Amino acid sequence: MFDLIAFDADDTLWHNERLYRMGRERFHQMLAKYKLADTTEAIDERVNQTELQNLKYYGYGVMSFVLSLIEASVELTGGRISATDIEDLLKLSKEMLTDPVELFPGAEEAVTRLSAAYPLMLITKGDLLHQQAKADQSGLRGYFRHVEVVSDKSRATYAAILQRVAVSPSRFLMVGNSLRSDILPVIQLGGWAIHIPAELSWSHEHVDADGAFGDRCFELGHLGDLPGFVDGLAGRRAE
Amino acid sequence: MFDLIAFDADDTLWHNERLYRMGRERFHQMLAKYKLADTTEAIDERVNQTELQNLKYYGYGVMSFVLSLIEASVELTGGRISATDIEDLLKLSKEMLTDPVELFPGAEEAVTRLSAAYPLMLITKGDLLHQQAKADQSGLRGYFRHVEVVSDKSRATYAAILQRVAVSPSRFLMVGNSLRSDILPVIQLGGWAIHIPAELSWSHEHVDADGAFGDRCFELGHLGDLPGFVDGLAGRRAE
Repeated sequence: MFDLIAFDADDTLWHNERLYRMGRERFHQMLAKYKLADTTEAIDERVNQTELQNLKYYGYGVMSFVLSLIEASVELTGGRISATDIEDLLKLSKEMLTDPVELFPGAEEAVTRLSAAYPLMLITKGDLLHQQAKADQSGLRGYFRHVEVVSDKSRATYAAILQRVAVSPSRFLMVGNSLRSDILPVIQLGGWAIHIPAELSWSHEHVDADGAFGDRCFELGHLGDLPGFVDGLAGRRAE
Repeated sequence: MFDLIAFDADDTLWHNERLYRMGRERFHQMLAKYKLADTTEAIDERVNQTELQNLKYYGYGVMSFVLSLIEASVELTGGRISATDIEDLLKLSKEMLTDPVELFPGAEEAVTRLSAAYPLMLITKGDLLHQQAKADQSGLRGYFRHVEVVSDKSRATYAAILQRVAVSPSRFLMVGNSLRSDILPVIQLGGWAIHIPAELSWSHEHVDADGAFGDRCFELGHLGDLPGFVDGLAGRRAE
């Protein structure tokens, strides 16, 4: 039924967003000594705005996040941020970049079982070096025939990937936690998608689900259910 | 004679290192007001050391460079660097990331002419988003069948690329300005290489050429000579 099954990586196969939450939390603690008038929410909003404005320069990933934190720290403190605190933000970037990969429960079994029946691909966005390092550290890299690190997950990105590996969208299934990045563009392209919501997701990845996902999109609560569900789908189509 | 010809991008097809020199120059001007005891050479050495130590975290590219400049500025000034100067380094990063691509003389003609006879690939290392943007802006992207942004140009990287496109190293030619990144790993793999030295190259890209490049490596002074030279090579082999 499928010629290729692709997985998103961050917050689909392994923890990621919690690391950014930790980073934001550290940022708040750091700013506490400056006794800003801004509420926690206002600071978060400023960080988020800075991140979004900087996407066109820095793209996605830890370096982009920390460069945005540095920028926001200068603005929020009106230039009072200390060099020591800047140094702490640089340390934060290195901690985040070397944080051990922790797989979600069921990730290894899902990938192992599906790889026995389908060619698998990993499609992830972010820092090239960091995403490749996480794929290596995950212990799962060997199960993926292709690993694609992309700068954005647009419909055009998926179309280009599928063209390169000569797979028709109608024979392609994408599995991921982000409606915006993993599901919607694939459905629009004529592919299949399984949405597995993560407990934590970056607000930027949210979209208003308006029921336009059609009958080639499914939602599962847990990765552990994935292999059986894919088998079921294939069986139903074979009848 | 060749099933694939690949080009390095930065400082092979278009200017790049001069932008980093400009960045270093701006860094020196910025530090002048701190009246450091360090010489210009000592400051450059500190920046270079910081960059090399950070490669394992940040990889190659503008974000890596500017994060290293921020780190070096804190260290060199003993924590006296001002938030305003940090802000200027962030501005520098955005300037560098949006600096217009300027092709080397002869680049367009060389790529155009060779693309008529050979499948071409672009192999470049650095920030994923930035490298893709430069390939797009160069006006040359359409001549390349493949564009690969890699985190490092090791022998294993080239081997993986060639395996993916099913090309034998003995039928592969790489063109680039860096002996370390573009020439040596390809020769070691059994491929062909044409070295076109750039006027400016990052010191990290230098290697001691010890004559171990063999008879599948050539040096050209100018991109304009490339199409004729490749024709000549192919003709010589055909006889």
